[in-house]
Amino acid sequence: MTYAELLRVHGPVDLGSIPTDAAPGFAEGKKAGEAALASLGPELADLQERLWAQRTAGSNRRILLVLQGMDTSGKGGVLRHAVGLVDPQGVRIQSFKAPTEEERSHDFLWRIERAVPEAGYIGVFDRSHYEDVLIQRVRGYAPADEIERRYGAINDFEARLAAEGTTIIKCMLHISADEQKARLFERLQNPEKHWKYNPGDLDERALWPDYTQAYEIALERTSTEVAPWHVIPADKKWYRNLAVAQLLREALEGLDLTWPTADFDVEAELARLAGEQSPR
Amino acid sequence: MTYAELLRVHGPVDLGSIPTDAAPGFAEGKKAGEAALASLGPELADLQERLWAQRTAGSNRRILLVLQGMDTSGKGGVLRHAVGLVDPQGVRIQSFKAPTEEERSHDFLWRIERAVPEAGYIGVFDRSHYEDVLIQRVRGYAPADEIERRYGAINDFEARLAAEGTTIIKCMLHISADEQKARLFERLQNPEKHWKYNPGDLDERALWPDYTQAYEIALERTSTEVAPWHVIPADKKWYRNLAVAQLLREALEGLDLTWPTADFDVEAELARLAGEQSPR
Repeated sequence: MTYAELLRVHGPVDLGSIPTDAAPGFAEGKKAGEAALASLGPELADLQERLWAQRTAGSNRRILLVLQGMDTSGKGGVLRHAVGLVDPQGVRIQSFKAPTEEERSHDFLWRIERAVPEAGYIGVFDRSHYEDVLIQRVRGYAPADEIERRYGAINDFEARLAAEGTTIIKCMLHISADEQKARLFERLQNPEKHWKYNPGDLDERALWPDYTQAYEIALERTSTEVAPWHVIPADKKWYRNLAVAQLLREALEGLDLTWPTADFDVEAELARLAGEQSPR
Repeated sequence: MTYAELLRVHGPVDLGSIPTDAAPGFAEGKKAGEAALASLGPELADLQERLWAQRTAGSNRRILLVLQGMDTSGKGGVLRHAVGLVDPQGVRIQSFKAPTEEERSHDFLWRIERAVPEAGYIGVFDRSHYEDVLIQRVRGYAPADEIERRYGAINDFEARLAAEGTTIIKCMLHISADEQKARLFERLQNPEKHWKYNPGDLDERALWPDYTQAYEIALERTSTEVAPWHVIPADKKWYRNLAVAQLLREALEGLDLTWPTADFDVEAELARLAGEQSPR
């Protein structure tokens, strides 16, 4: 079974019934998991280079990895350790913060559209348009009928991206409230990590049940055939990184990426180069 | 002596007198060089995280690494192996191709200004505004007086970036014509590398002496105190990668990056977190 099959959600989602500390698809422990991740590096790099090479031959294929999760769930860690395995030239990371005034004056998908990856790239959204049905729902920043409209708008938008060549991988990094508490403690107890902490984090944390519900609704309403959601048990950092890297590998492998054939006469070029005297 | 001191150019530049296969500052060979690069990884990652953390405390510091060099000189390799050592979240790579029609209708620095890194980032230019005094000079795409104007405009532009918090590192990857020939052969002989080859590469190569002269002029006219040029011997790929990584490390170290102090009451937050019951 692929990681995509193991982790994908279908229909109504009950996050409480999905363990946060499991390691679906991987029977061994941390050490083996870290080694498995490292050994994925060359494979991922090769696949990514093929994706990039295909772009030069006119392919419109690209990857969009969407990362969502509560504070401290490890979006940054995934970027560092899983996405960090591939060539940075072929990666576009977009981190979405609270929308600016200009962004708020447009439809919620306006800033998203501008950030979708070009052909040949692996694009990564660190948070995304899903914030517009998560924090905006929980905090009541948008009225209920507008939130309602957004689920359908998201599905239409993602269907269009998929139709124009984008393979979409959506990951919800799933941690327990206890694990978050431990990670917040770690940030507070280490002066080198104070900059990562914001007192507002505790206010958000108090709304944990509301966020859980908002996630469950979003997962159910927007997990589609062309843009499925995966729930990644994320209490174990090593598993979280490995699982996302595996999803990326599976997606790239699914594209059957061959090396483009030369659009020039190789023999003629070889003769030209051989017959030429090195300048200088 | 630092790598910056060893590799920096001053005054008139004679590229012919700078060896392309040397390894200034590193007495050992390839194996040791590759190990040295790998061991720089954690150090660079720590420095980069501090740079990023400083951004959250309002610092405007940032790094701009400019990569120039003839075809096959290894700009891509530097991105993969040196820049690839740091967290991709804090890196912005901009690759400059032939300008679009819109870009051509603006001043040559217009598209450059839009691509300069934000505070906290390591920005990398894969080719740059220097193309506007290199290929444009060699090919005569712009008249002589316009080319002439650009050297001063570049210096003013870079002085402004430096004044607003940007540490600029400019690297010319210096290979011999023979080494380029060998690398072009490699691309032609390996079907998996055909996509990297373009028959136009040989036309550019025929202009090697003109490019060399254009580089020499550009290096002399735009190597300034705040934005110095470094010539990196680049026939040895391992040295090229190591040297650029070392320049990056030296630049980051020069910023004396401390961890920001908390702008909140740490004890109060610890008490708040400890006193709170985990939701759910």
